[in-house]
Amino acid sequence: MKQKRIGDYGVKLGVFPHGPLDKITDVPGVTVGHATIRDERHHTGVTVIMPCKDNMFASKLTAASFVLNGFGKTQGLVQIDELGTLETPIALTNTLNVGIVHDALVGYMAVRCAQEGVPMHSINPVVGECNDSGMNEIADRPVTGEHVLAAIADARSDFEEGDVGAGCGTVCHGLKGGIGSASRVLTIDGQRYTLGVLVQSNHGCLEELHVGERAIGREILAKRRQQASAEPTDRGSIMMITATDLPVTDRQLRRIIKRCAVGLARGGSYFGHGSGDVMIGFSTANRVPHGGANRVLTYRAVNEDALELAFRAIAEATQEAVLNSMCCAREGKKLSGATVESLAKYL
Amino acid sequence: MKQKRIGDYGVKLGVFPHGPLDKITDVPGVTVGHATIRDERHHTGVTVIMPCKDNMFASKLTAASFVLNGFGKTQGLVQIDELGTLETPIALTNTLNVGIVHDALVGYMAVRCAQEGVPMHSINPVVGECNDSGMNEIADRPVTGEHVLAAIADARSDFEEGDVGAGCGTVCHGLKGGIGSASRVLTIDGQRYTLGVLVQSNHGCLEELHVGERAIGREILAKRRQQASAEPTDRGSIMMITATDLPVTDRQLRRIIKRCAVGLARGGSYFGHGSGDVMIGFSTANRVPHGGANRVLTYRAVNEDALELAFRAIAEATQEAVLNSMCCAREGKKLSGATVESLAKYL
Amino acid sequence: MKQKRIGDYGVKLGVFPHGPLDKITDVPGVTVGHATIRDERHHTGVTVIMPCKDNMFASKLTAASFVLNGFGKTQGLVQIDELGTLETPIALTNTLNVGIVHDALVGYMAVRCAQEGVPMHSINPVVGECNDSGMNEIADRPVTGEHVLAAIADARSDFEEGDVGAGCGTVCHGLKGGIGSASRVLTIDGQRYTLGVLVQSNHGCLEELHVGERAIGREILAKRRQQASAEPTDRGSIMMITATDLPVTDRQLRRIIKRCAVGLARGGSYFGHGSGDVMIGFSTANRVPHGGANRVLTYRAVNEDALELAFRAIAEATQEAVLNSMCCAREGKKLSGATVESLAKYL
Amino acid sequence: MKQKRIGDYGVKLGVFPHGPLDKITDVPGVTVGHATIRDERHHTGVTVIMPCKDNMFASKLTAASFVLNGFGKTQGLVQIDELGTLETPIALTNTLNVGIVHDALVGYMAVRCAQEGVPMHSINPVVGECNDSGMNEIADRPVTGEHVLAAIADARSDFEEGDVGAGCGTVCHGLKGGIGSASRVLTIDGQRYTLGVLVQSNHGCLEELHVGERAIGREILAKRRQQASAEPTDRGSIMMITATDLPVTDRQLRRIIKRCAVGLARGGSYFGHGSGDVMIGFSTANRVPHGGANRVLTYRAVNEDALELAFRAIAEATQEAVLNSMCCAREGKKLSGATVESLAKYL
Repeated sequence: MKQKRIGDYGVKLGVFPHGPLDKITDVPGVTVGHATIRDERHHTGVTVIMPCKDNMFASKLTAASFVLNGFGKTQGLVQIDELGTLETPIALTNTLNVGIVHDALVGYMAVRCAQEGVPMHSINPVVGECNDSGMNEIADRPVTGEHVLAAIADARSDFEEGDVGAGCGTVCHGLKGGIGSASRVLTIDGQRYTLGVLVQSNHGCLEELHVGERAIGREILAKRRQQASAEPTDRGSIMMITATDLPVTDRQLRRIIKRCAVGLARGGSYFGHGSGDVMIGFSTANRVPHGGANRVLTYRAVNEDALELAFRAIAEATQEAVLNSMCCAREGKKLSGATVESLAKYL
Repeated sequence: MKQKRIGDYGVKLGVFPHGPLDKITDVPGVTVGHATIRDERHHTGVTVIMPCKDNMFASKLTAASFVLNGFGKTQGLVQIDELGTLETPIALTNTLNVGIVHDALVGYMAVRCAQEGVPMHSINPVVGECNDSGMNEIADRPVTGEHVLAAIADARSDFEEGDVGAGCGTVCHGLKGGIGSASRVLTIDGQRYTLGVLVQSNHGCLEELHVGERAIGREILAKRRQQASAEPTDRGSIMMITATDLPVTDRQLRRIIKRCAVGLARGGSYFGHGSGDVMIGFSTANRVPHGGANRVLTYRAVNEDALELAFRAIAEATQEAVLNSMCCAREGKKLSGATVESLAKYL
Repeated sequence: MKQKRIGDYGVKLGVFPHGPLDKITDVPGVTVGHATIRDERHHTGVTVIMPCKDNMFASKLTAASFVLNGFGKTQGLVQIDELGTLETPIALTNTLNVGIVHDALVGYMAVRCAQEGVPMHSINPVVGECNDSGMNEIADRPVTGEHVLAAIADARSDFEEGDVGAGCGTVCHGLKGGIGSASRVLTIDGQRYTLGVLVQSNHGCLEELHVGERAIGREILAKRRQQASAEPTDRGSIMMITATDLPVTDRQLRRIIKRCAVGLARGGSYFGHGSGDVMIGFSTANRVPHGGANRVLTYRAVNEDALELAFRAIAEATQEAVLNSMCCAREGKKLSGATVESLAKYL
Repeated sequence: MKQKRIGDYGVKLGVFPHGPLDKITDVPGVTVGHATIRDERHHTGVTVIMPCKDNMFASKLTAASFVLNGFGKTQGLVQIDELGTLETPIALTNTLNVGIVHDALVGYMAVRCAQEGVPMHSINPVVGECNDSGMNEIADRPVTGEHVLAAIADARSDFEEGDVGAGCGTVCHGLKGGIGSASRVLTIDGQRYTLGVLVQSNHGCLEELHVGERAIGREILAKRRQQASAEPTDRGSIMMITATDLPVTDRQLRRIIKRCAVGLARGGSYFGHGSGDVMIGFSTANRVPHGGANRVLTYRAVNEDALELAFRAIAEATQEAVLNSMCCAREGKKLSGATVESLAKYL
């Protein structure tokens, strides 16, 4: 995938090395797919994160969520919080299509479980969303179940970023947002572990945008001879999905994904009122069998001190993932006709 | 509505008086409607609680949630917890149809807001569920958006209880469950306030069932010459919806609905692992305008000590609502052919 | 310890077998000690639960808390919730002496760690409390650090229940409360595990008191020719401490201790406004080393379905522990001169 | 109070105007006092925030807490979270003296309530802490009740910042930390409201320290010809206390203080594992009477959209308060003999 990412502009964020693709898919087994809807009145779609190749309902993944700002419609967190496991793909879409995407994930898992001989009577799909109504006639609810299946079919390691899938119509810090990703690699006791982040970026106000230490939002306002508004609004939302192969408990994982907030703040977000800022994470290190005869299980988990590294790494990865989502997104047009520029123009 | 309810068997629960209907709809403005799917292989449906007559998106209601046991798929709680408001009807259905019901509530509100001239680009539908797969071929996902609209159209004060709507296929304490309701009236400073509860009951094991002080579950087992199982399971779920006209903040309301757990335990639940036990509440006393020019609002709320009465009342109402759901439900059949008896048979 | 407990009155609660002592100390390694202050104007004290024999700071225990009603001053929960571990004894006392007891636990651990060669610069004491101001001139704050050390020195397996230690001045359901305990034994895959509960009971109103299915509170009111008050108050508080040797994660443990609420409700509590109802639990099964070179640890935990048994067992044990606290407590006198009868009188 | 603060170095943070003192005490009624312990082996003390002049137990303040990282021993949050009110001063001290400071606050309130004719049998002191064991022989627990009373007696509007009171021995981003404060002024509907923050700063690693966009931590490392450590540790803790006269509910206040995290991250924190990062806030706008005959109360609260301004303002104020704590703190010495430089040296 040849897209110009933030690192390609000579911007280096943080101190940890990244994985081979510098994407969430550097975590072994994780793939990402898109289905994009792009026409005169619609810019929206679906992005799906597949946490593993095998049946995730039969063999669940350790999972956690953290709601930084709950002005949003994310589905599936009640059960993740109670049971600490993920049992479906994670899908992202627009605000008014979460129901239909939820329904499609149920359908996908029902078919798959039937095919793979896994009895299934209950399932907890996880669906996140951003409001892309600036660029998308959202009331038309253009996403269908076909788009969800298409995104799943499209899942791959080296996926596209920017204005694709669920990021087709999003706006971030007043510029074009989208899907972005990054990864970091930790070494603990000689063993390498990867943390990856994928964001659907739709938050922030221009004047607070930072690229590393560069207050680029204020530069852009100056160039445009615009004033910052008296009451800027950090509208929109951001979904932050973390994957890792680090062996952690769900409690530890919640502590890690909470630090996505650090990367978000470094980029200029102040977790605005209108922004549903939601973190969801999963670890592929310990799989949890559905039901099963084995009543006492054995898990591995890092000691608590080792989380220090993961906290720092996830902050870096999130900061970079947001900027990748913006760099890779091309200029777009609002329904109002206004242009939404790409960050790439100013780097 | 002439149905034989628990009180008609001479069972009196608690010390507070109830409202005229002894239902959640004793709270002024609240109505309830059902759409029922009942055929050879399907027993399921939709029940909708309408919190007010006017547009609840334009003028929101104070709301709160409490997840007693999060093994469930309830949708909409993230935003309720963050903002403390309800802006749609609350719909109940089966586990695998929450997505489609969510989608239908979006559609209903979009049409209604358009008709009523209320701009709407984002909406937070609230959908609860129980798993009725014992009596319902749940993988068929038979509920459609039409059912949701039909349930809304059916909304009334004196609604049916038992095996209707979202309660058509539920099983409670090993007997037929369903939709049940009850209300209690408080007097504070000479002013009367009503608390009402509606449950979708699908939880519990037979041996722990109590009607007041009567350990009726153990009686039934004895009559049937059955043993309690070595490892009984409190499977299923229960949705508990509270309405009130008591002026409370969202924090106070959360404290109130948490006490639904008391009524639940009195009836014999131990909040089993497999049971998604979820409370959602709303108050009609303070309405919260969407957006609006008025930037400082005035609210009324009872002082904290006055909650004592509400705590006790909600416990009584919940205990009774569960029993009403069971009394009013007629005998049914599982997909396996096994009979699911009605509690009425044993009273 | 020969005290007449609820079982000695022929009352059998629940279906699980109990451990040899039917106390929290049936969990191997757990001991309990008291220091009691009993004079004309003071009825109060300290009760300490020692979770293990060895240094619990050096080798921490899996722990969790659940605040059912937070009108209370329990200390130490912030860190338990974040890190999922217990690193000190748990002490119970009266509301206005929590600070001094906290300080004494710091002192105890500082001395012990110094003696045992364990470097310690930070420690998280856990202190619970009930308000015994009806029987205790609480403003005198009579508890000192000496009492804490005396309670620790007194720790044993077969400890006293009733009006001793932190239960000396408590009132429960309008009768004399105190310290009570009970245990239950589970068998999973042929292996026996124990769950034990210790309560400091100071909650509830008389009219709602139940012993099993017997509405004994209403009987007592009738005998006394008293009316239930129009607005009864479930004042006071209850501390519920759970110990187990079941291998569980902190998340699973939180799920278990939440079900103490079931036992509490069965006895007649409705989690009244004024009652700080707090659960704290620990498991001795997986010990967590402080710091240490080992960066990836291995844990055992039951699968989620097996929790069903633990939920039911903890409900039974809590219900019984409250009644044991009341049976074993002798009649007392309020500062006002009024008598506080013992439940034993009515059994 | 003539101390050189961050603004005096020409550093302007954010866009909102500050109050006359640019301190938390710009909120009418709020005062702050210190008691400092400074000798060969001890650098510690107590800082007290007095939320109002009148009796805060008789007339409570709306309050909220948010635990960003719970590796800490803060006391009093259980009740704040349940009831949404503050009823004592807030005291800050070192980790091992929280118990004794808690006890002293009980004593202070007991005496004061007795003098002012306010019956008091239960009280919820709020005590925060940082671990100053690098500069303070913490095991000696040198703080006494006298220090708490002295800090209360010292309370004033124009209080000292830097290495005083509870900030005497703290270390922040590898330099000297301490007590710092800042304020911001909002205008809503022509009415001015103030938000103020006070921090006890003891967190962060040097290499991540930022003053606005300046990566001063890396500059300092370069000057010192030091490498950043392979595994830096964001140790310590930070207590963040917010005061405001904005009329808000406790839920809204929790949303506001959560955004202290933004200011913290801007300065270079990544909410490290060892850092107990805790926010506590109160509003003076609506006072809540203790008990009282008035059973339905009237409150004012801003509409939710207006919080946008407060979120942004609190982020700015927190960012500045941390830097003020560092600028105003003079160079110190660790127990190890190592020098802890002041940020002032590098500005």
